[in-house]
Amino acid sequence: MATWAERLAGIRGVLLDISGVLYDSGAGGGTPIPGSVQAVARLKRSRLKVGFCTNESQKSRGALVRELQALGFDISENEVTAPAPAACRLLRERGLRPHLLVHPGVLSEFEHIDTSNPNCVLMADAVEGFSYQNMNRAFRVLMGLERPVLISLGRGRYYKETSGLMLDVGAYTKALEYACGLKAEVVGKPEPEFFKLALQELGLEAHQALMVGDDLVGDVGGAQRCGLRALQVRTGKFRPSDEQHPEVRADGYVDNLAEAVGLLLQHGDQ
Amino acid sequence: MATWAERLAGIRGVLLDISGVLYDSGAGGGTPIPGSVQAVARLKRSRLKVGFCTNESQKSRGALVRELQALGFDISENEVTAPAPAACRLLRERGLRPHLLVHPGVLSEFEHIDTSNPNCVLMADAVEGFSYQNMNRAFRVLMGLERPVLISLGRGRYYKETSGLMLDVGAYTKALEYACGLKAEVVGKPEPEFFKLALQELGLEAHQALMVGDDLVGDVGGAQRCGLRALQVRTGKFRPSDEQHPEVRADGYVDNLAEAVGLLLQHGDQ
Repeated sequence: MATWAERLAGIRGVLLDISGVLYDSGAGGGTPIPGSVQAVARLKRSRLKVGFCTNESQKSRGALVRELQALGFDISENEVTAPAPAACRLLRERGLRPHLLVHPGVLSEFEHIDTSNPNCVLMADAVEGFSYQNMNRAFRVLMGLERPVLISLGRGRYYKETSGLMLDVGAYTKALEYACGLKAEVVGKPEPEFFKLALQELGLEAHQALMVGDDLVGDVGGAQRCGLRALQVRTGKFRPSDEQHPEVRADGYVDNLAEAVGLLLQHGDQ
Repeated sequence: MATWAERLAGIRGVLLDISGVLYDSGAGGGTPIPGSVQAVARLKRSRLKVGFCTNESQKSRGALVRELQALGFDISENEVTAPAPAACRLLRERGLRPHLLVHPGVLSEFEHIDTSNPNCVLMADAVEGFSYQNMNRAFRVLMGLERPVLISLGRGRYYKETSGLMLDVGAYTKALEYACGLKAEVVGKPEPEFFKLALQELGLEAHQALMVGDDLVGDVGGAQRCGLRALQVRTGKFRPSDEQHPEVRADGYVDNLAEAVGLLLQHGDQ
């Protein structure tokens, strides 16, 4: 395998996944992953550009950033690429009026969007909102449309909270796709459009950027398909079997963000 | 196309789907489909063997039969092939101890099954039981198993109640399959094993039996793949587009069970 210096050559900026890399979300604001607060601070002091790229769709971007700041992270709203704001742009461009199957915490992102007489369904990580009643409501809206459109903020399978593993929006998206016989449009990782948006906000080309994530398929595989390099951290939803995945192979595996930043600052083009 | 006499030659028994053929389910016990009570009575007086083959998994076989008897149907429990009793047999044969994600109405079918320290998940049409909490519980059981086994009673997309369209167990099965990266084992139509069981209980070979159902893929296609002949009724979830389905073609389409029985008694080998 190539040396770290070879693997990190030419990297001018990093995109950091948030949940499972910076912190583990959960009741009471979650818990920072040891070393991650300091690792972000070290990156910010370096010459590297720093952006955050998340599929978080349970809360607004503002609320997420305030939560992270309270945990000690140096992060601001304009550094975060998140699916809800990206979806609002798409809804406006296409004249779509969504029936929203989302968590109350993210509703504020959609307050300027027309939701009357819906002509699509938009779903995000609704958590307890994924009740049988709410799923049926969304299903009936789709079945009532001549050309049903389902927009999903991410395709994640599950994530880890302090209380345990939680089903993510991707599982519920599959349920509606199967019941309606359609394919959802995804806004979020691993969609190439979403990585392109994050790169644009970072001001870098794909070959200059490194993604750091805990999700092998969503973060690592998605970024690599877009031409970025990507490291997987052994925190968050990482499982040892990820390192033997038949299709996706990270450019490197590190114990946590602190190790990734250490390697980058030691071996990257500083 | 062959005459009815040719199409029904050699038929010695019928398997009837229940929901959408005998009655439409719904609040207050449902409504019989006009002519079906009399059609079952005519079949019972004929020389044909009669069995019932259902994917009903919301209630016990006993409760279903009592509901149908109250509507006037001549039916008894030992004539009905249903997924919950078939699943119990499978669980016992394989030493599986299920975590149950089912409707309270069907729990009595599992009362003699060991559910301690689960080594699989069994899901059925849980209706309101498909809460986020219950889905997470089932998901965590699967993720905690070295060799996860998911058994699903049917793969239906949705069904129609008097109050509107309802998501069926198949949609929620897809959600868990996707989240866990596995394939469920299905007990119910259109699985060949399930039709074989129904034939065995009827005491006939496949080529001697006729399936009558409202679900083109689950009833008609499934039965035909097992070597039975099959008619589709234009009641229940039948949609006119079924008659132009690209893959499945019934041996005949009839307005309802009464017409199917009339043809069988007129043209079959009596």
